[in-house]
Amino acid sequence: MSNQPQVLKGFRDFLPKEKRARDFVMGKITNTFKKFGFEPIETPTIEYRETIMGKYGDEADKLVYSFEDNGKRAVALRYDQTVPTARFIANHFNDLAFPFRRYQNQNVFRADKPQKGRYREFTQCDIDIFGSTDPLADAEIIACTYAAYKAIGFKQIKMVINDRQVLMGALQPFANSSVNVFSIIQSIDKLDKLPVAEVIGELVRKGMGNGEAGQAIEAIQKAKPSENLQKILDLLSSLGVARDEFRFDPLIARGLDYYTGMIFEIRIPGFTAGSVGGGGRYDNLIEQLCGLKMPAVGVAFGFDRTLEAAVQFNLIEDKVQSDSILVTVFDESLVSESAVLAAKLRKDGMICELYPKVDKLVKQFKYADKKGFRYCAIIGPDEVKKGIYLRKDLQTGEQKTIGI
Amino acid sequence: MSNQPQVLKGFRDFLPKEKRARDFVMGKITNTFKKFGFEPIETPTIEYRETIMGKYGDEADKLVYSFEDNGKRAVALRYDQTVPTARFIANHFNDLAFPFRRYQNQNVFRADKPQKGRYREFTQCDIDIFGSTDPLADAEIIACTYAAYKAIGFKQIKMVINDRQVLMGALQPFANSSVNVFSIIQSIDKLDKLPVAEVIGELVRKGMGNGEAGQAIEAIQKAKPSENLQKILDLLSSLGVARDEFRFDPLIARGLDYYTGMIFEIRIPGFTAGSVGGGGRYDNLIEQLCGLKMPAVGVAFGFDRTLEAAVQFNLIEDKVQSDSILVTVFDESLVSESAVLAAKLRKDGMICELYPKVDKLVKQFKYADKKGFRYCAIIGPDEVKKGIYLRKDLQTGEQKTIGI
Repeated sequence: MSNQPQVLKGFRDFLPKEKRARDFVMGKITNTFKKFGFEPIETPTIEYRETIMGKYGDEADKLVYSFEDNGKRAVALRYDQTVPTARFIANHFNDLAFPFRRYQNQNVFRADKPQKGRYREFTQCDIDIFGSTDPLADAEIIACTYAAYKAIGFKQIKMVINDRQVLMGALQPFANSSVNVFSIIQSIDKLDKLPVAEVIGELVRKGMGNGEAGQAIEAIQKAKPSENLQKILDLLSSLGVARDEFRFDPLIARGLDYYTGMIFEIRIPGFTAGSVGGGGRYDNLIEQLCGLKMPAVGVAFGFDRTLEAAVQFNLIEDKVQSDSILVTVFDESLVSESAVLAAKLRKDGMICELYPKVDKLVKQFKYADKKGFRYCAIIGPDEVKKGIYLRKDLQTGEQKTIGI
Repeated sequence: MSNQPQVLKGFRDFLPKEKRARDFVMGKITNTFKKFGFEPIETPTIEYRETIMGKYGDEADKLVYSFEDNGKRAVALRYDQTVPTARFIANHFNDLAFPFRRYQNQNVFRADKPQKGRYREFTQCDIDIFGSTDPLADAEIIACTYAAYKAIGFKQIKMVINDRQVLMGALQPFANSSVNVFSIIQSIDKLDKLPVAEVIGELVRKGMGNGEAGQAIEAIQKAKPSENLQKILDLLSSLGVARDEFRFDPLIARGLDYYTGMIFEIRIPGFTAGSVGGGGRYDNLIEQLCGLKMPAVGVAFGFDRTLEAAVQFNLIEDKVQSDSILVTVFDESLVSESAVLAAKLRKDGMICELYPKVDKLVKQFKYADKKGFRYCAIIGPDEVKKGIYLRKDLQTGEQKTIGI
């Protein structure tokens, strides 16, 4: 290993155990998406820069991986999944059934400063319904999100739900020439992380009076769900979301300015790194992106955080630890007996590896142990004569003879 | 749809039906890989250009997507999976159990001229065993490949198998100062596409005598398996590969110059676009790439061709066409009844979509039909009173009332 190149900062290799954990969580999420009638789509990793940039403007400019390809075209890497989906919908409009509900689980790229828990390439899991303004659509998105987290195995989740209209209604009276309502919302959004006094301080610095800032916070704390949001909340119960796992919270604001109605976040009690996902309704964005009038509601799962929480709560099931067997090779003369046994165990549905060389048995056991296999199969001259094999349980040490 | 940006040439969107077909084939392949004890890994899409370029040299220079990132680093997109895996093995050597068998199914990028069946972003499915020179390893690779194609549903496959040593042995006597043995192999490789006379012509143009060229072809046609290859072939039968689905073929050469031993190709009789995958033993490449002495044997599935063949033979199973139901919404007053029914059907394991708005029933039926759903559920005032719902089979037209 004279000269070892490394991965770029912010990028990751996934070792087998990590990749299996990722696949486990992704499998649960994807199955739930399918079960709710969401259909999979995929868009290219590379697109015209103009498409990828969407309406992000200058800030994204720095965060989008963009370059010139061999044909001198300005191209860029997928930055999110919403912008390419808008292009996709416009391109394939006649082939899609509306309201169109799709899921998309692909990697996105951000030329961001890498830091703990933040990567330059990471996986997003998105579901969205395009073409319905009905509270039913909002409720389906929230119910599917709930079902996905339940499928992963989380016992308790907390979904906090609000409506941009509630925020606008309560806070509009406090907007003035130096602080607009969206700027107030951005400060209010920090109430779950900062003490009230600090949020008031920020609002004052933005140009509100001290008393007004306090009144604004009080007004939002006392706000009630809109009629539309109440319908969504009622539907959640019908859709089987447990009453104690969602609640209206007028303080939830969500940072992105494109939301126009319901907004929500998913939190896992006991997981302190923050919300594991969030979404809401954005009825104007698709039109801005591709000129197509298309109301939309959706959610993005923070896949890495969700995985982290699943690991913390010990939810990952690894089949290699329960159903796997290494068929060892006794010696040169018995290679084909081991091969026949491996073929049989595979037919029986086991995860089964045939050790791919002639080696000392103790070395083969060590290999099985390091790889995390549950069992080893041994088939020597005695076993061949009797038509059996010896199965060693690497977790308990127990040995058993089994007929072939 | 005033202004419609498109995808770049050589890149593709996947519509739901296409993506489900891809997922079906990928699922069968991946399950087989797992069953044979191959472990999943992933490497980043972007790496240092120096890593990605590996030992490809000038030709690849033009085909690798490379650029300078914001930190002025020369970076490039994944071009294949072997080169990043060599880097991965060197980086994680102590965390891996050897012989290391891994699978890797990721997209790779080629700045190639796009043409029919050739894309700039496409999926590769690779399995390899690193750290064994034993014929057992070669046999495991071929047997796993066979099992994967069987799992997809192909009734007949043909695996043609050869050994670079057989080729070298038979053709070395015909090499001379103007044509080396590898150049002869490259011409011989065309025998399955060109008439013998044309291949002879090519060899003569390369500097062989007319008689010699004919003798070279005759020599290779009469070649017998090496002892090592015979062991591999014998093991395949033990591992359950049907005797009529593999054969020794001394004319198989495989283009890549890094193979050192067994080489093989997978063909589907009746699928005329060419072989759907191939591989072999390459005992020197990893050392060239990362300085680590590491014999290796593996196979790359041509995912797009495999999918194409699976479509041609009608092997794709689409659950949406058998197990899916759209719960319609009768009117505004019965929305929550539909929601409760949807929750129940989902619990029962159906793929179930709740139509996400209040709409004319006929419009909802049309939607279900366009999307390819099997059933529609209708729950109106009469059904609510009786505690039932009406299930309409969109394939047969049959209607059934079912208790909730």
